[in-house]
Amino acid sequence: MAKTKLTAISGFPEFLPPEQILFAKVLDIIREGYELYGFSPIETPAVERKEVLTSKGGNEKEIYALSRLAAGEGENPNTELALHFDLTVPLARYVAMHKNKLTFPFRRYQIQKVWRGERSQAGRSREFYQCDIDVIGRGSLSLLTDAEIPSIIYQIFRRMKIGPFVIRINNRKILQGYFQSLGIQADQIDGITRIIDKLEKMGTEKVVSELTNKTALEKATAQQMIDFLGNELKTDDMLTQLNSMSQINEQFSQGVKELASVVEGIRNFRVPEASFKIDLSVARGLDYYTGTVYETVLVEHPGIGSICSGGRYDDLASFFTNEKLPGVGLSIGVTRLVSQLIEDGLLKKGAATVAQVLVASMDENRTSDYLRMGTELRNAGIPTEVYLEKARIGNQLKYADKKGFKIAIIAGENEFSENTVQIKDLITGEPIVCPLTDMVQQVKKSLSAQESKL
Amino acid sequence: MAKTKLTAISGFPEFLPPEQILFAKVLDIIREGYELYGFSPIETPAVERKEVLTSKGGNEKEIYALSRLAAGEGENPNTELALHFDLTVPLARYVAMHKNKLTFPFRRYQIQKVWRGERSQAGRSREFYQCDIDVIGRGSLSLLTDAEIPSIIYQIFRRMKIGPFVIRINNRKILQGYFQSLGIQADQIDGITRIIDKLEKMGTEKVVSELTNKTALEKATAQQMIDFLGNELKTDDMLTQLNSMSQINEQFSQGVKELASVVEGIRNFRVPEASFKIDLSVARGLDYYTGTVYETVLVEHPGIGSICSGGRYDDLASFFTNEKLPGVGLSIGVTRLVSQLIEDGLLKKGAATVAQVLVASMDENRTSDYLRMGTELRNAGIPTEVYLEKARIGNQLKYADKKGFKIAIIAGENEFSENTVQIKDLITGEPIVCPLTDMVQQVKKSLSAQESKL
Repeated sequence: MAKTKLTAISGFPEFLPPEQILFAKVLDIIREGYELYGFSPIETPAVERKEVLTSKGGNEKEIYALSRLAAGEGENPNTELALHFDLTVPLARYVAMHKNKLTFPFRRYQIQKVWRGERSQAGRSREFYQCDIDVIGRGSLSLLTDAEIPSIIYQIFRRMKIGPFVIRINNRKILQGYFQSLGIQADQIDGITRIIDKLEKMGTEKVVSELTNKTALEKATAQQMIDFLGNELKTDDMLTQLNSMSQINEQFSQGVKELASVVEGIRNFRVPEASFKIDLSVARGLDYYTGTVYETVLVEHPGIGSICSGGRYDDLASFFTNEKLPGVGLSIGVTRLVSQLIEDGLLKKGAATVAQVLVASMDENRTSDYLRMGTELRNAGIPTEVYLEKARIGNQLKYADKKGFKIAIIAGENEFSENTVQIKDLITGEPIVCPLTDMVQQVKKSLSAQESKL
Repeated sequence: MAKTKLTAISGFPEFLPPEQILFAKVLDIIREGYELYGFSPIETPAVERKEVLTSKGGNEKEIYALSRLAAGEGENPNTELALHFDLTVPLARYVAMHKNKLTFPFRRYQIQKVWRGERSQAGRSREFYQCDIDVIGRGSLSLLTDAEIPSIIYQIFRRMKIGPFVIRINNRKILQGYFQSLGIQADQIDGITRIIDKLEKMGTEKVVSELTNKTALEKATAQQMIDFLGNELKTDDMLTQLNSMSQINEQFSQGVKELASVVEGIRNFRVPEASFKIDLSVARGLDYYTGTVYETVLVEHPGIGSICSGGRYDDLASFFTNEKLPGVGLSIGVTRLVSQLIEDGLLKKGAATVAQVLVASMDENRTSDYLRMGTELRNAGIPTEVYLEKARIGNQLKYADKKGFKIAIIAGENEFSENTVQIKDLITGEPIVCPLTDMVQQVKKSLSAQESKL
């Protein structure tokens, strides 16, 4: 029979076990971090109605629609459904639809795959995980919530141990007020903001030239704008300068007030000064942010770009309900993040198994004993595999080594006759012989000795 | 602006937070159970190439294909991709594709959504989670692996605390040998097996009548078959009877030997006698099982049907590789399971928040103190929300009650002036006033007191 051809599908990443185990650990850290702050999980279907996904317009090309592969006679193969491209539109639909069953402020996290039908490019996935949190108020939402988000980021990325990072904070009202003061029309602001957002990637010169080419800005104004947005003052000096400019207009002054209040909150949340800063060039391309915006970068690995981003929006669900639902949220694009952290050596791939102990099988007549040892270790909460095939002990140890087990339990005729067991540390290679009754304790001791050496 | 209409999409279930939190807990129990036995996670993309999904044929109607919602000019909106309808075909593709980078026996679990484009019926989802484990050998795989699966089932469902259950075990070789002995042609066996599989749902009479109508079987033979398959002997008596029939043919005798060996293994894995039994009527509709098959039912809730099922197959990936890859696996259809367990009152929905403690905000000037309390509790690993809005304490306690917090921390002028804090048990309603420095300890004490009362 002809075999079906197997090749990777570009843009749809798939990990081998060592990467997958690491990826699962990162997801656990994020999930625990979100839950520690009282964000509760929700999950929405992978699909929404097409009209829900397109209610904002502009991204139809990215969206994958579903059709029945082989519809029956007289059936329409097309469905009304399409895969979600982010978790914000589904959240808006969820909150609008269930709002009378939810308690506000509604605090949820959502860790799910999203799909984007882009042509695949290097580093661009068409399927990836997003880890989002959002707090949604009914009518209003305290600015303290904007300050809470950086403390969640801080806590999560500290626990990931990927080196120093800085959460860059800005407020879109400051940008918009400033732009207005330069005589820029309201309908140009979004376009300019999107260009500004590339400042770090493209550098000042290119951004100035793109600004003068693509907008009506003169070069001097563009340069002045970049000088203002790119300035690198310390937090309090920045706030002093912004305050001194408050007369620019109402919008600007409101943004400065909000930013100052968010900074005060961040300090109250005990985020260290070194982990956050005001950066006026952070604009976020997405036009639904209306106030605070965030981006986070790794200090020693700026090339990775922003590892998470988010912000405040006036109204989550205006396409679905007349009720005002302001919110603030954050998204971690974790598939790309983990791939890059592995590539840059910031996260180390480990074992190909989640089990720590392999019970080797030396003697077929002792199967019952080996299985009992496995059960005892599992009952003590230690992930354990019993080797169930027939193989020489050398091959079993090779298997243990390839998969990355930490300890092997070995018992043959000698051990059984003396009621002992050999506990082999697979990292140091050292064997310890102990009474069978001490097996679980000794395994725990050896595992924690290994951990303390890491 | 006209609002987009919002209604649920039939067949795509979506939980509110209390159900979602419960669902996540069940997934955690399953995941931990799999990992305890050394099964490691893998994840495959939600999509595969159409030709991979259809390589076995027969289920095209169920498959959702992807197309670009709005392809550019000259672009073909159709893609080569479709959503997976189970996790076995993706596993087969994964193992065949990566086999030289995997270590065998390959033990993986996979917890992912699958999609089936069926017309929606009551209780039938078009999107749901499957939790699968499989062990894949290269060339061969020990029968002990077949015995390990029931011990995993036993351990997981015991921890779920959903009442007594029985793992029903059979071997398809016994069925096939027996059918052959009745003169049933090989090409009829799958059809008959599928009818037999309905025995429990439809009862003897209907199955006999379906067998005589849809196959060439005479009524007497059909009745004799059902009597044999439906007999309710104890495990050892069943094995004795099956052994005494071993002369039937080679196929039958081979099946009996395997079954006896699997039963011995299950006992060695310490699965209690009450939790498993031989049931000759378990056939599993799917034609890829070739040996051991399993189904599990809740003793006191037979209406729920099988809560997990699986079996042994000779060759996982014959469509993709010439290499022989025998395996044994198990699948839990957890979306339907959890919905039914909630409906039948076997799992109780709990709080709408994962946080245990709510720090109330009594005095705006003390925000910094409230936030510090939250940080202290989180640093001790206690999921905590600080109430960030302005609201009267009564409304804050209503919020705590609605969401299901367990403890509220209350501190106003009195408490601050005395360096104390009020810890209110939201289940008993009892307040405890303690020194601020003892807050974390007292919260832990109150939480564990609550737990011990459950």
